[in-house]
Amino acid sequence: MTNQRSSMSLRLTEEKLLCLDQTQLPHIENWVDGTDPRSMESIIKNLQVRGAPLIGVAAALCLGLYWKQKRPAPEEFRRLSLLLRESRPTAVNLMIAVDRLLRVHELSPENTFNEALKIFDEDVLLCEKIAQMGESVIEDGDGILTHCNTGGLATVGIGTALGVITKSFEKKKKIHVYVDETRPLLQGGRLNTWELEQGKVPYTLICDNMAGFLMSKGKIHKVIVGADRIAMNGDFANKVGTYSLAVLCHYHRIPFYTAAPVTTLDGQCESGDQIPVEQRKPEEVLMSWAPKTAKVWNPSFDVTPAELVTGWILDKGVLNWNDIKNGKLRELV
Amino acid sequence: MTNQRSSMSLRLTEEKLLCLDQTQLPHIENWVDGTDPRSMESIIKNLQVRGAPLIGVAAALCLGLYWKQKRPAPEEFRRLSLLLRESRPTAVNLMIAVDRLLRVHELSPENTFNEALKIFDEDVLLCEKIAQMGESVIEDGDGILTHCNTGGLATVGIGTALGVITKSFEKKKKIHVYVDETRPLLQGGRLNTWELEQGKVPYTLICDNMAGFLMSKGKIHKVIVGADRIAMNGDFANKVGTYSLAVLCHYHRIPFYTAAPVTTLDGQCESGDQIPVEQRKPEEVLMSWAPKTAKVWNPSFDVTPAELVTGWILDKGVLNWNDIKNGKLRELV
Repeated sequence: MTNQRSSMSLRLTEEKLLCLDQTQLPHIENWVDGTDPRSMESIIKNLQVRGAPLIGVAAALCLGLYWKQKRPAPEEFRRLSLLLRESRPTAVNLMIAVDRLLRVHELSPENTFNEALKIFDEDVLLCEKIAQMGESVIEDGDGILTHCNTGGLATVGIGTALGVITKSFEKKKKIHVYVDETRPLLQGGRLNTWELEQGKVPYTLICDNMAGFLMSKGKIHKVIVGADRIAMNGDFANKVGTYSLAVLCHYHRIPFYTAAPVTTLDGQCESGDQIPVEQRKPEEVLMSWAPKTAKVWNPSFDVTPAELVTGWILDKGVLNWNDIKNGKLRELV
Repeated sequence: MTNQRSSMSLRLTEEKLLCLDQTQLPHIENWVDGTDPRSMESIIKNLQVRGAPLIGVAAALCLGLYWKQKRPAPEEFRRLSLLLRESRPTAVNLMIAVDRLLRVHELSPENTFNEALKIFDEDVLLCEKIAQMGESVIEDGDGILTHCNTGGLATVGIGTALGVITKSFEKKKKIHVYVDETRPLLQGGRLNTWELEQGKVPYTLICDNMAGFLMSKGKIHKVIVGADRIAMNGDFANKVGTYSLAVLCHYHRIPFYTAAPVTTLDGQCESGDQIPVEQRKPEEVLMSWAPKTAKVWNPSFDVTPAELVTGWILDKGVLNWNDIKNGKLRELV
């Protein structure tokens, strides 16, 4: 297999790992250099690279390439790996990818780079499988609401929740996508719109607070979101606002799904209350309009309890509430 | 009584009616001239003057002053009145104020200006009474979430929902206010923050999609919002996002109140499905970040059904669900 890889937001060449700066989309397509792990750390922290599966793959590729180019001493490699592992706290894909690379590196360092490539290739396949599995939940005529970006920008494949949606559109299902803009960083308004326009998928952009009203009007037939970490009891963390959508779906009896690869399952985490929720800086909320002195609460994620979830669309199949109670998630990690 | 009036956002002198441009707050305090009804029409349409009670008062003052200065023919006065009456469709206070002025004008034109002053003065008193009535629902230690701006900027008194909140703070109740930023036009993030900082009321700004997560953490003890039109069955229209909050409160068993003056009751409107909901232009949602070609749904309001409301805080008292079923709203119009 070749040593180069390319996705919507990562470009691995023999010399460099380039990352599409997602903070500047949709208006500016600027690629930043994430070859050095210290650069990659700030790229991930600044959300220039974001999306739970993508940050795992990006960290792995960066470390793999670094080993291939520099042959660092084991302690240095370990130190840089942990630096990336800790760059964001909620999405477990990052920890799982770095831990996997570290294990391989400790056993046989010469396999480090290849393992990183494998992680990339697997993510592509995982996305494909999620989309296949998710097909069964989408019906002709569906209005589907999604929150935050979970497409080709958030993975190195076709995406998770958005992958299910776009794949069903490609298979000629008549759907309409409703896009939550996803404050404060507008991944829906900036990134889903960009991806959906590229795929010519019909969509309507709304503010997050309009979702309930839209549901009350019967326009939403299901909600599909991604996940940043799924606990063994089926609770999951995802972009803040997800929990409110789950409650709104419950009230309106609208099926609510999360779509994620096996790399989002956390076998160490029994329930949602153990998931660390990243708090980010006030400036993301304040932007230019609010008083600079305003006190802000800015959790990047929230946690949705399993009882509000209709189905977990995983690469291995669509689990339901009974599967979860029977410990099916545990079997997958 | 003097012919001058002043509130947080209106200044009536002998010659002019000046309006604080609320679209530029909190960073710029710019007063625009709303003396001419045709100017006032665009000031209201552009939301430089906004807030259900305020637009009613502003339209009345503008027409009253116009009559005083120009003595227009009855047809011209009527035409300009209808122009203002139709400048925004949802908040009924505007229609009620203009209709009242027109009735007085037709009976005895020389009373037109004085009637406008009365409408101003009554709004001040209505706000005071709402705050008095609302006191009973606020307890020490309350975390109170509010949506959109309903304070001194949205009325010519101390406000409706925000008036209840700030009044209880002045009376030494230990409260903390959570402010929904209120997309797309950020009346919470721009205007409530500004008012609360002036009053030194402790508050925390959040994005609208964080409210559910905050409720799940037990931080919110009640939600109080304003209203733009209350139907006779207790359904009410308010800033979009209100309905989602009402559903979230229902799920979390959090009391949910709307606070409004009698001028927000619509005796012609039996239920919420008869309330026209204003659709505004996509640019308000797109701002600078989304693709210009994005299709947008931008209702300015939504409708909350009476069954989700714990109490209606009116200037005449706090009504409950039983009062509503017994036709108490009808008695007030």
